[in-house]
Amino acid sequence: MQTWTLDNIARLVGGTVRGDGQYVVDGLATLKSATSTDISFLANALYRAALSTTHAGAVLIRPEDAEDYQGIAVLVANPYAAYAQLTHHFDRTPKPNAGRHPQAVVSNLAIVDATASIGACAVIEDNAVIGAGTIIEAGAFIGARVLIGKHCRIRANAVIHHDCIVGDRVTIHSGAIIGDDGFGFVPHHGRWHKIAQIGCVVLHNDVDIGCNTTIDRGALDDTIIYEGVVIDNQVHIAHNVIVGAHTAIAGCCGIAGSTKLGAHCMLAGGVGLAGHLEICDKVQITGMTMITKSITKSGSYSSGTAFDTTENWRKTAVRLKKLDDMAKRLRELEKLVQQLPLATPNESEYDG
Amino acid sequence: MQTWTLDNIARLVGGTVRGDGQYVVDGLATLKSATSTDISFLANALYRAALSTTHAGAVLIRPEDAEDYQGIAVLVANPYAAYAQLTHHFDRTPKPNAGRHPQAVVSNLAIVDATASIGACAVIEDNAVIGAGTIIEAGAFIGARVLIGKHCRIRANAVIHHDCIVGDRVTIHSGAIIGDDGFGFVPHHGRWHKIAQIGCVVLHNDVDIGCNTTIDRGALDDTIIYEGVVIDNQVHIAHNVIVGAHTAIAGCCGIAGSTKLGAHCMLAGGVGLAGHLEICDKVQITGMTMITKSITKSGSYSSGTAFDTTENWRKTAVRLKKLDDMAKRLRELEKLVQQLPLATPNESEYDG
Amino acid sequence: MQTWTLDNIARLVGGTVRGDGQYVVDGLATLKSATSTDISFLANALYRAALSTTHAGAVLIRPEDAEDYQGIAVLVANPYAAYAQLTHHFDRTPKPNAGRHPQAVVSNLAIVDATASIGACAVIEDNAVIGAGTIIEAGAFIGARVLIGKHCRIRANAVIHHDCIVGDRVTIHSGAIIGDDGFGFVPHHGRWHKIAQIGCVVLHNDVDIGCNTTIDRGALDDTIIYEGVVIDNQVHIAHNVIVGAHTAIAGCCGIAGSTKLGAHCMLAGGVGLAGHLEICDKVQITGMTMITKSITKSGSYSSGTAFDTTENWRKTAVRLKKLDDMAKRLRELEKLVQQLPLATPNESEYDG
Repeated sequence: MQTWTLDNIARLVGGTVRGDGQYVVDGLATLKSATSTDISFLANALYRAALSTTHAGAVLIRPEDAEDYQGIAVLVANPYAAYAQLTHHFDRTPKPNAGRHPQAVVSNLAIVDATASIGACAVIEDNAVIGAGTIIEAGAFIGARVLIGKHCRIRANAVIHHDCIVGDRVTIHSGAIIGDDGFGFVPHHGRWHKIAQIGCVVLHNDVDIGCNTTIDRGALDDTIIYEGVVIDNQVHIAHNVIVGAHTAIAGCCGIAGSTKLGAHCMLAGGVGLAGHLEICDKVQITGMTMITKSITKSGSYSSGTAFDTTENWRKTAVRLKKLDDMAKRLRELEKLVQQLPLATPNESEYDG
Repeated sequence: MQTWTLDNIARLVGGTVRGDGQYVVDGLATLKSATSTDISFLANALYRAALSTTHAGAVLIRPEDAEDYQGIAVLVANPYAAYAQLTHHFDRTPKPNAGRHPQAVVSNLAIVDATASIGACAVIEDNAVIGAGTIIEAGAFIGARVLIGKHCRIRANAVIHHDCIVGDRVTIHSGAIIGDDGFGFVPHHGRWHKIAQIGCVVLHNDVDIGCNTTIDRGALDDTIIYEGVVIDNQVHIAHNVIVGAHTAIAGCCGIAGSTKLGAHCMLAGGVGLAGHLEICDKVQITGMTMITKSITKSGSYSSGTAFDTTENWRKTAVRLKKLDDMAKRLRELEKLVQQLPLATPNESEYDG
Repeated sequence: MQTWTLDNIARLVGGTVRGDGQYVVDGLATLKSATSTDISFLANALYRAALSTTHAGAVLIRPEDAEDYQGIAVLVANPYAAYAQLTHHFDRTPKPNAGRHPQAVVSNLAIVDATASIGACAVIEDNAVIGAGTIIEAGAFIGARVLIGKHCRIRANAVIHHDCIVGDRVTIHSGAIIGDDGFGFVPHHGRWHKIAQIGCVVLHNDVDIGCNTTIDRGALDDTIIYEGVVIDNQVHIAHNVIVGAHTAIAGCCGIAGSTKLGAHCMLAGGVGLAGHLEICDKVQITGMTMITKSITKSGSYSSGTAFDTTENWRKTAVRLKKLDDMAKRLRELEKLVQQLPLATPNESEYDG
């Protein structure tokens, strides 16, 4: 187990120690869970109450928040960024040595950098290229002619099919499938005839693809995920989708074929995008929303329905089916009331 | 093929045979599909009509339901429980022998109980511990320092990443990914910077995790699934979620980060829970509902929208966007009508 | 890289060349992306404008659309079908040789046709049968007694559990899990007791199953996918579901247990079907719709909610919870207005 003095931590995050800089910690934890050998952090005023009860050995904290706190503090302007930075030093994710596991299966025609690491039962097909420092974990499959850049991590049992291109510092989490066929069939006499999918998938630098997410290869052109995009688990990205740089997509979203999503967008969980749309940059979409038309103006969009008790919701659901009828009846009533000889002007006219 | 006398079946399920106790069956089937060598069951009055046409050799049945039935019966108080019990005796899921397949890849530093079974191309990393009677099927990946208890079954191509903890009698179905990274990034100058996920996943005893379900490791604290929880396929459970004991989660649900779901809850398919919520015990959530606020009272909750013909639904959808306007117009009309000199009192006042 | 003369392409698709039939192409591309060594196609009038700017060496085109086009044309009645046909000739998906990779793990009790191909780290269990020309890619798992027909392709890291039956020309894409257990538990004293799932999965001829899709084995009877069904990625099909021939199911759909879906149906993305329903033939269901009742009439059905700006949608959402109240108030108002001595007849009566 690695240990750190608070002086060393302060140096790392650009802070200053208030108290014993030689105090030693070996873990990073929440205020609630921390013990005396952990360092914790206060980033959100909502958790300030936890300061008085925490058992943390030290706390990363803004100077202005530290007055109430009696323990050892590492004063820092942005405790959340400092915490994020420190996580990498307390991370226990195995860092395998360079080289090939004896039970890795690497084609003689593949070109694997000497500093790359290939795990047990990983399979690397003909003419694939694996860059420096890249880790291919156990059971992963790298298809023919796939190009993978430097310092990537392809996690256990992930799959990248033939001819796909992966930039540098890309992470593909376990069970993700990159570059299998898009869902392309042409109907003929009541049967579906497959259209071979001859495009590929291009993942630019610094992309992060979640577990069991699927990104299909393009029908003709490629499916493209631009730089810095982060995608959570269980997301479905269909053929020829384009995702703009630095967009974030939360779990369980689905994006249908040929839709072009802009840069710096944020999709919450369970969002669905229909095919052949264009969504401009800086669009936020809230949870479980269905997008059926292109969006040309940045901003936030929604259609997820808020819950109610099932008893109340059933009443709403019954009425919802009659909404068109209700709207017509309302209109009739308005006309009728307007015709009444004694009707006064509609007050809403005064509202502006 | 194994065969059973009805006497033996009756003994097993605590019932009594009405008819030939030496009659032999070799299968368990529905009333509709059963042949003369099968035993079937009547658990639900809805299927009573099938009794008169079934070809089953015998039927598990309540004494009070057996009067109409002429065939051999195994009388039992709870035929459904008896059926459930019998399924395990007719189950043909392979039961591999203890020991390691020659093509299993097991670290010399792993501790594998002599009664455990490790399949071909399964990979077990350093310092993992595999308990007695546990089966690791082909292609599964068990990361470094993972602890797995007794009599678990980790099915083909499932993944458990480093440092996760799995109790006894846990089943993890194929393609499920336990303990890959949570979706944690901090934005900085328009880019996403990864926060290393240094918690793990803890699965308590008797948990059952469906195919291709993903359960992410915690950011700092652990993601915890308590005893007896059953989770169906394609479910996404984000970092630091806590699921209370004996809760059931149907397919395609998604639970966002840090949400705490109570014990004995039931989520139907396609439900989405936003992050940082607390859902109390004994909450039922119906299909495709979106939960965006904490729930403090047990009961049933919904927001899934009932379907209609597309033609009708389109009319509803158009009106839905104008619902706020409709509500305002209704309010105006009410005011206007109240002002009419000849208006009679609103009848609803009499409704109580 | 393979090259084609336009004469050869015309012969293949049943068209005629207008221009130089000896012109050579080596790729197939969209009008927008094509270069002078590609052939492209015009199938949809929407893309006609691209004809004037394309750099394609030749274009598959209807005679009546070719008048405006100056380049070399392959005249054909149905350019889209011609394109679909050609894709298979430009497809670079590896076609592995017959035989077993040295690191494949094949039971001595399995029966593998000599023309089948078994990839590295694929695992084939006892008594499985693999038909002629079938390709089992790397890392795939084929359980005991599974029967797989001819010319199937089971892609990298897909799983088929014991006793399942797969017809001819079936493709199962990467990460798909066929025949793991259905989600069957019986509650008893607050705990869930597993019901062993003793049915299997039957995939008829020409079925195509997408990446990370899961199809559970039946509880007693089988889960059945009939001929020609195509299923996209991340779909969840529960135990004992039956899907009728030539039905297409888009990504992220979920079908709960024992539901019977008809033939020639089309489900758009994210659709959910409750359990124990019967959906007749030729039903279309639009995106993110929830189906909770059986459907007996072919046609199109919907409940997916169109999006709005979050600001507007919030107003709608608030009103939606009060919809039952609004409906009651509208009814009251109608009664009240009808009682007014001077009220004129409701105009809607004249509407018929």
